[in-house]
Amino acid sequence: MSESLLNSIDFRPVILAGGSGTRFWPRSRRARAKQVLALDGERSMIQQTIERLKPLTSLDNTWIITNKYLSREIADQLPGLPAAQLVQEPAARNTAPACGLAAFLIEKQNPDAILGVFPSDHVIGDEPRFLRTLQKAVALAAAGENIVVLGIEPERPETGYGYIETGDLIPDGSALHVRRFTEKPNQHKAEEFVAKGNYFWNSGMFLWSARTLANAIREHVPETAPLLEAIAAAYGTPQFDEVFRDLYPKCENISVDYAVLEPRSAKGEHLSHLYCVRADFDWNDLGSWASLYEYQMTTRMRGDSDGNVTETGGHMAIDASDNYVYSPKKFVALVGIKNLVIVDTEDALLIAHRDNSQDVGKIVKELREMGKDELI
Amino acid sequence: MSESLLNSIDFRPVILAGGSGTRFWPRSRRARAKQVLALDGERSMIQQTIERLKPLTSLDNTWIITNKYLSREIADQLPGLPAAQLVQEPAARNTAPACGLAAFLIEKQNPDAILGVFPSDHVIGDEPRFLRTLQKAVALAAAGENIVVLGIEPERPETGYGYIETGDLIPDGSALHVRRFTEKPNQHKAEEFVAKGNYFWNSGMFLWSARTLANAIREHVPETAPLLEAIAAAYGTPQFDEVFRDLYPKCENISVDYAVLEPRSAKGEHLSHLYCVRADFDWNDLGSWASLYEYQMTTRMRGDSDGNVTETGGHMAIDASDNYVYSPKKFVALVGIKNLVIVDTEDALLIAHRDNSQDVGKIVKELREMGKDELI
Repeated sequence: MSESLLNSIDFRPVILAGGSGTRFWPRSRRARAKQVLALDGERSMIQQTIERLKPLTSLDNTWIITNKYLSREIADQLPGLPAAQLVQEPAARNTAPACGLAAFLIEKQNPDAILGVFPSDHVIGDEPRFLRTLQKAVALAAAGENIVVLGIEPERPETGYGYIETGDLIPDGSALHVRRFTEKPNQHKAEEFVAKGNYFWNSGMFLWSARTLANAIREHVPETAPLLEAIAAAYGTPQFDEVFRDLYPKCENISVDYAVLEPRSAKGEHLSHLYCVRADFDWNDLGSWASLYEYQMTTRMRGDSDGNVTETGGHMAIDASDNYVYSPKKFVALVGIKNLVIVDTEDALLIAHRDNSQDVGKIVKELREMGKDELI
Repeated sequence: MSESLLNSIDFRPVILAGGSGTRFWPRSRRARAKQVLALDGERSMIQQTIERLKPLTSLDNTWIITNKYLSREIADQLPGLPAAQLVQEPAARNTAPACGLAAFLIEKQNPDAILGVFPSDHVIGDEPRFLRTLQKAVALAAAGENIVVLGIEPERPETGYGYIETGDLIPDGSALHVRRFTEKPNQHKAEEFVAKGNYFWNSGMFLWSARTLANAIREHVPETAPLLEAIAAAYGTPQFDEVFRDLYPKCENISVDYAVLEPRSAKGEHLSHLYCVRADFDWNDLGSWASLYEYQMTTRMRGDSDGNVTETGGHMAIDASDNYVYSPKKFVALVGIKNLVIVDTEDALLIAHRDNSQDVGKIVKELREMGKDELI
């Protein structure tokens, strides 16, 4: 099936799954980060990520970069994944080393393979549109030394995302030249970006050939590249674990956006080979309990008539509206409350105002400082 | 000890323990009503009630009137109580039949015995003061056909309680004549009562001899009295259960206040033999989660510096204040919330605004209508 859709392009998804499990505490923990939770629907976020790519490829061609806390759970959730393609980082080093390692590993197998880097913790609605967009992006990435990013049309002046400033359309109209990647803007800047119309949210989904990405890493992260190449060289040998453990922590702790895309964009929009394919599917990075609430309420229409989104063993609301409630086994009664996030797990209970749900990370930070390892 | 304190008065506590377990849902249930819960401290409300009376009497002299849902739990909590003195009403009939039955039962043993009727679900601070007040009241009840009620100095214009309007002091200054018992007033009336200074909250604690109470029942509830006398006559015989089950539901469903005290007060303050002894101890009927919060915060000083009263397996509050949290086994995180009641039990979870905690009864009513018997 992948053959027919992508015309024999060797497409290799590289799934980044290195979450630390803080934003969806207490459901998420180090060993149960967002990626492996079924936050939206029956299957986990990473299972949905894989499922979504199925029409274009198979698990045999899929790589997952994760950490020691999550790897076992991921292996359990994806029984068809070849064990050697579940790469367990010995230390968290952000996305540049993770993507770079994948590039060097796959380059050895086929430098023309097209790597698709995908976060494993975003929700995407309307899969046919996603697949159409992705095929365009893969084809463009395969057409030369191109770096293709999927850009999301911004719905609001979000300050939590990076933005892509785009320029001219390419001749066939399937993508835009990228002028610049920006870091997370302040409110004023974000409003300006949205008003201008040629700015897109950086989805974190990138397409490029193994050769292109490997060369970009060699060019832009020159001290890290040889370390990653040495690790890739040891892959499949008895020394691999040791080499990986020794060298990987020495790699620069930097995102691929910051390490590669921003400097590359400085070459100018017609020389950088950076392209943005506009995503026309629903997308949500579910960055907090509040955004999960919003997503389930508006996109999934899962709320009741009082705007309560509930996953409980039954509930009753008396003068209670616009709450998110997770307590899958219990009967929950809500009385006179509004805009709360209530998350009940076996050993911990969170009650937060929805406006404060970004503070959930602070709880985990404090628990760590308190040494309450059993709760993080 | 009781001999020395009460000068050989035969004092018999009659503890009313017929709760239905709605106000403290989900902790309270039919079989775990407020009386048998340890809402404040280590021991249950009924255990505290009994403990408080220990210096004046023993369990051998104590009667408990309860219902079929609670009797087993009460028997377990009070192992020294003679089984025959744990009376299990076959139907809920309010306080006049309950008090009347106790009066007829005890009258047969000793008409001069002083019955002390006590609710089993109030908290009382400062036990030495309670005992001093109670001794005055018992002595006054033993000095003739007197009916003595403990009156609580009102702290606020509470509309949820009955009030006692008092008149002249008796010559020794130990009590006031009662002019009138009032039903629960509206806000305006309640404010008037508090301003006047001679109104007291009706505590539901009454003292009278078995003879006086029995005669009052005969006089004021004349159709119910013979039914209760027939039940009392069958007490100790093999027919008791059947007679009780047949006749008790036919008794008038009425409170002792409404059936006896209000009509009695119509005789005029110097002819009614109704007296009010002013209680100078802390008293709280814990009528809702909000009042438990207030009590633990102000009287027991159990709150943290942000005004959170918590009974949890650990908690963290970030911009969260003035909440009541019960989740004894879990770690609870509160973020950006204020004035909430959070009660977590094995099968149910309540999140309510403190201002709405009187609506908790509605939940139980609705659960009953939904047929969710396992939750009530």
